[in-house]
Amino acid sequence: MRIAMRVSYDGTAFSGWQNQPRCRTVQGVLEEAAAKICGAPVGITGSGRTDAGVHAAGQVCHFDTEVAIPAPRFRECFNRILPSDVRVLESAEAPPDFDCSRSAKRKTYRYAAYYAETELPLLERYAARLGFRPSVERMRRAAALCEGTHDFAAFRATGGSAKTTVRTIESVLVTERSVSDGTVYEVTVCGNGFLYNMVRILAGELFAIGCGKEETALIAALNGGGRELLGKTMPAKGLTMIEVKYQKSPFGDGRE
Amino acid sequence: MRIAMRVSYDGTAFSGWQNQPRCRTVQGVLEEAAAKICGAPVGITGSGRTDAGVHAAGQVCHFDTEVAIPAPRFRECFNRILPSDVRVLESAEAPPDFDCSRSAKRKTYRYAAYYAETELPLLERYAARLGFRPSVERMRRAAALCEGTHDFAAFRATGGSAKTTVRTIESVLVTERSVSDGTVYEVTVCGNGFLYNMVRILAGELFAIGCGKEETALIAALNGGGRELLGKTMPAKGLTMIEVKYQKSPFGDGRE
Repeated sequence: MRIAMRVSYDGTAFSGWQNQPRCRTVQGVLEEAAAKICGAPVGITGSGRTDAGVHAAGQVCHFDTEVAIPAPRFRECFNRILPSDVRVLESAEAPPDFDCSRSAKRKTYRYAAYYAETELPLLERYAARLGFRPSVERMRRAAALCEGTHDFAAFRATGGSAKTTVRTIESVLVTERSVSDGTVYEVTVCGNGFLYNMVRILAGELFAIGCGKEETALIAALNGGGRELLGKTMPAKGLTMIEVKYQKSPFGDGRE
Repeated sequence: MRIAMRVSYDGTAFSGWQNQPRCRTVQGVLEEAAAKICGAPVGITGSGRTDAGVHAAGQVCHFDTEVAIPAPRFRECFNRILPSDVRVLESAEAPPDFDCSRSAKRKTYRYAAYYAETELPLLERYAARLGFRPSVERMRRAAALCEGTHDFAAFRATGGSAKTTVRTIESVLVTERSVSDGTVYEVTVCGNGFLYNMVRILAGELFAIGCGKEETALIAALNGGGRELLGKTMPAKGLTMIEVKYQKSPFGDGRE
């Protein structure tokens, strides 16, 4: 039986999703819990390999087991064992050909940053601090340029292994909200797939443009230019994987 | 010279504000930094003693020093030394008779809780989880009963040392907002002073009423009843000291 699960985690104390020797990873703690529940080693596949420090509100993963537990009950079985910084939100039976990574139709990531005169300890865990106050109007104009199908080769960090660098971004939403002593800016990106570090590089370029950089480098990057056109990759802690959507979702309550 | 500072901290790793032997406290790390800056022991007074785990967006404190540093520069002097979970937001010279605690005219605290089927790791650090989904309409009706001048003796945990238990609550605001897989509820309380654990007990009673408890116990508590009428004290991690206001604020930018 194939089980699909939606998972949320605070990435701060994890060396990312993917198993690595002698590192605390999300995949590692999930596989450890699965082995206890199923009484045998279980390999768990994730829909995307989040980096060290990246958070997830709705990562999706799947595994196969023959243990006689009704699929929706796996949620509580995992949550009784898992450390408090990772939780299974939902578990469901999936068809044998469901692959949480290859079947994904659309993914949403959110990058959070804030501007304040001083570091704000209550924001530092989930947002990067900006050195300047960006213009949201400038960021939104630049965000609109990124929507659509482009070759995003310039937005890929070295280390990515994707065969093609063409991706379709459905939407890039920029919001701002005031908090005590500062302003939080969020860039929410929805697309059919992302290259390694693509959201963090894209968010960094939008913040740079919001703080005064010209749009010309972004336009050149979207037209076959190289990584050097764009600014710094934003820190991992500001990034959260929000959700993964499927043509036929294994999950309930009206999700696609 | 008397220096007043606004301070923010993530209370998770602190044993509260007040100095205690062999404990990491906010007052302790601030006094340690002050001693390095001033070259002599410095006693720092806070406007309120937040408990272990309670956060602050705008705690206020003061101290006296003769060191020749312009008052606004203390901010960066402290921030170069302080650990990353506490930051000085602003420093200013205050009149010799300014007392951050006794001169306080109004304080604002916010209590955050959320309802979700499963613990949400991205909310757990700054909010308590509710077992039921509260009705915001019921909470707001109950909140209105608390506004005004009352004897809040029933809202005080043992351990408080206040001489009178009469306090004036200016406003109790209840808000809700949706997040991935849950709803966050915030109770923002503004008043001229608070008894020990008063905001956590008040928030707990409002959440209990929101989840179905009758208002009669709250009404009896506001009319001279005892602590036993009210529900449990909410966990510390959901509480944040938002701001302290003064008749004559030592701080700039339009604050009272």
